[in-house]
Amino acid sequence: MRELEERIKQDGRVLNQDVLKVDTFLNHQVDPMLMQKIGHEFYKYFQDYPITKILTVESSGIAPAILTGLEFQVPVIFARKHRSITMNKDLYVADVYSFTKKVANKISIAKTFLNSQDHVLIIDDFLANGQAVSGLTEIIQQAGAHLEGVGIVIEKTFQKGRQLIDQQQIPILSLARISGFQNGKVIFTEK
Amino acid sequence: MRELEERIKQDGRVLNQDVLKVDTFLNHQVDPMLMQKIGHEFYKYFQDYPITKILTVESSGIAPAILTGLEFQVPVIFARKHRSITMNKDLYVADVYSFTKKVANKISIAKTFLNSQDHVLIIDDFLANGQAVSGLTEIIQQAGAHLEGVGIVIEKTFQKGRQLIDQQQIPILSLARISGFQNGKVIFTEK
Repeated sequence: MRELEERIKQDGRVLNQDVLKVDTFLNHQVDPMLMQKIGHEFYKYFQDYPITKILTVESSGIAPAILTGLEFQVPVIFARKHRSITMNKDLYVADVYSFTKKVANKISIAKTFLNSQDHVLIIDDFLANGQAVSGLTEIIQQAGAHLEGVGIVIEKTFQKGRQLIDQQQIPILSLARISGFQNGKVIFTEK
Repeated sequence: MRELEERIKQDGRVLNQDVLKVDTFLNHQVDPMLMQKIGHEFYKYFQDYPITKILTVESSGIAPAILTGLEFQVPVIFARKHRSITMNKDLYVADVYSFTKKVANKISIAKTFLNSQDHVLIIDDFLANGQAVSGLTEIIQQAGAHLEGVGIVIEKTFQKGRQLIDQQQIPILSLARISGFQNGKVIFTEK
């Protein structure tokens, strides 16, 4: 997505070999007009899939997920993050490890919002090591729902998340694919 | 807002004398079509104010705030919640106490996103004791920005938040105003 790549070049800050900060338009301050275009891109790609629910993780996934849900006219569920969580029969729970923050979290969603009739599109802001997508996939399996695809705003192709998804043959669309950082600049993967 | 009141009657669950759960369309599962209408209502009411930024708190404020920002065509900033936070010269920080969860949190936003030129509309999902709005107001004051108004999806008029805002003569629009709960049913304030 050309406009997104331009925005990353213009506003993104490369913090080190692994971390790109995009908190001017995606992670902390959010550009709703860009989110609308992002939602439209995901819709164009996945519109023939029988999507009944959009699934994401709080907080940074919510904005792109909501605008995607608006395009599909379906509900959006955001999984909650917890440092720890007591067993609860009303929740689906999965583990998510953050390599950036070096903390283990659990994510959960209420069982009432996902069942075997659901066809789910996962939307998230970043794909790096694939921990969030793996956790969400696990929750979808627990619910007996169908994972139809994964929509990612920014993918770092040099980390292992993409490989994990491709191994499971899950349809995926990443709107910007970054192969690395050089001298503080972002290198995009050639299509 | 009639449609919102109907939705609360239909899907809201009264947990006790103080707590209404609306996680089927606002707090956990989100209805993006309803959020769009909510954003439009806030826009209609505040459209003549010179709004440059929408400010909210993660996570449940993000969905209504994003759709409001889309109507105004301005950026949305979501303050982050922290259990504790080390002093950081790059952040505005304020205290927020949650009466529901009985925990003290801090909220923060990066200084770079708010300055004395900004005219801010606060959007939040609930107004109860007004702690979140007070914290956001404090952050706006730290930035030297102008608070133009407050837009609330659901207000509980029997808690003290509204009074706090009225005392400061801040323009406020609450789309649903709840005066209490009776036999597990929601009583709306007569207009």
